Amino acid sequence: MSLIPLPESLIPFLQSYLPPQRTDKIHVTLTYAQSLDARIAEKPGIQTKLSHVETKTMTHYLRSKHDAILVGIGTVLADDPKLNCRYEIDHTVPHHPRPIIVDPQARWKYQGSNVSKVYNAGLGKAPYIIVAEGAKIDPESEKAVQLAGGQYIRFPVQPNGGLCWHQVLTKLHDLDIQSIMIEGGAHVIDGILKFHKIQPTINSLIITIAPVYLGKNGVEVSPCNRVDLVDAEWWTGLQDSVLAARVS
Amino acid sequence: MSLIPLPESLIPFLQSYLPPQRTDKIHVTLTYAQSLDARIAEKPGIQTKLSHVETKTMTHYLRSKHDAILVGIGTVLADDPKLNCRYEIDHTVPHHPRPIIVDPQARWKYQGSNVSKVYNAGLGKAPYIIVAEGAKIDPESEKAVQLAGGQYIRFPVQPNGGLCWHQVLTKLHDLDIQSIMIEGGAHVIDGILKFHKIQPTINSLIITIAPVYLGKNGVEVSPCNRVDLVDAEWWTGLQDSVLAARVS
Repeated sequence: MSLIPLPESLIPFLQSYLPPQRTDKIHVTLTYAQSLDARIAEKPGIQTKLSHVETKTMTHYLRSKHDAILVGIGTVLADDPKLNCRYEIDHTVPHHPRPIIVDPQARWKYQGSNVSKVYNAGLGKAPYIIVAEGAKIDPESEKAVQLAGGQYIRFPVQPNGGLCWHQVLTKLHDLDIQSIMIEGGAHVIDGILKFHKIQPTINSLIITIAPVYLGKNGVEVSPCNRVDLVDAEWWTGLQDSVLAARVS
Repeated sequence: MSLIPLPESLIPFLQSYLPPQRTDKIHVTLTYAQSLDARIAEKPGIQTKLSHVETKTMTHYLRSKHDAILVGIGTVLADDPKLNCRYEIDHTVPHHPRPIIVDPQARWKYQGSNVSKVYNAGLGKAPYIIVAEGAKIDPESEKAVQLAGGQYIRFPVQPNGGLCWHQVLTKLHDLDIQSIMIEGGAHVIDGILKFHKIQPTINSLIITIAPVYLGKNGVEVSPCNRVDLVDAEWWTGLQDSVLAARVS
């Protein structure tokens, strides 16, 4: 999808939710687009066009302000996303974020993916792939990722299948990632919201709501417990509403 | 909860979604408040404060513009709502809507309810109660409802437990109800959205979104299938966003 010029009013709206210039902790922004009934896709494994091109443009503007984008393996397998930044200022892309893929069982193959294509074309960074300690990594994929300047990073997975977000984010910060956008899918979003209850982790939420019901069979975002938000501000576009907030 | 003066910008925002002066069919407005994750309550049977007082005031303004409010028995048993209009212009309530309670098994008792209290105080109308054809109605409740000027109305219930909305709305229109707000709960909302697919029924949707996640154990609104909306407009208040739209 081609982008459009960013609606001007989005820049002051987003300003206070963006990562600060300097921080001694990684800045985490949770951002995704959902339907009215909190679905991010109409069916599991199916990419659903939800947001208007202006809020899609906003996502790329946000990517230009972060060092990394993190997505789960479900999203990567369903969408084969580019995970780069296509937001331009004066025909120049200001900055590409590092793609981080959470892939505990190492199911993803780098070769042939859109991430590898944009890297090869000089239009994106090589990925970091987060895998479980015992996962069997395809040697060809590992070689190709390393050659591109990316890496596989092994972490223990908790008994319930979840990652220890604290460990992951600390490690990424050690790798000089000062700010990260967590973009999905549902499992990752619900996981980070759950983890935030144990240890405050999320600095900003920027959520696009599209005026459609995707229905009960869609892929839902809803954390296991209540999560209160503060500093809530809304921006209205041609089609969507955008909520910017912080977790209380 | 006391109301506040209606934010002025809500009046032009809502204007084109309100019932017209004259219509040969009943005008149906679907309206409710939900969390970001499409929950209308934190747990079944528990009333959850969601919307800001200004969007609560909007609900009462909307009630002043409709002949009836319809709610399901779950909501009535959980909240014991007054189902009247508390929106005032120059210290006068412009109009009370007729409470319509969908109670297939006739579980509700009028006596002692807040609906009866506001009726007795001259602050609301007597209810119409929609029950299944074979339902056993408590004779005391029936007598009290009739004495107040309300009535029980019997309808066949479909094999799947759903109402035939067409029959219900036609009957209410015959009873001189020109416009109705459907306010909840989840079962009623999902039911009318499902029925709309078979026969266009809903004229307007006015949905308040509060910036909070109520979590997976909450009472969810999500129809069984995708529902596309058109003419979507957003209004932003101090806390909530309000979507006004029509079903495509």
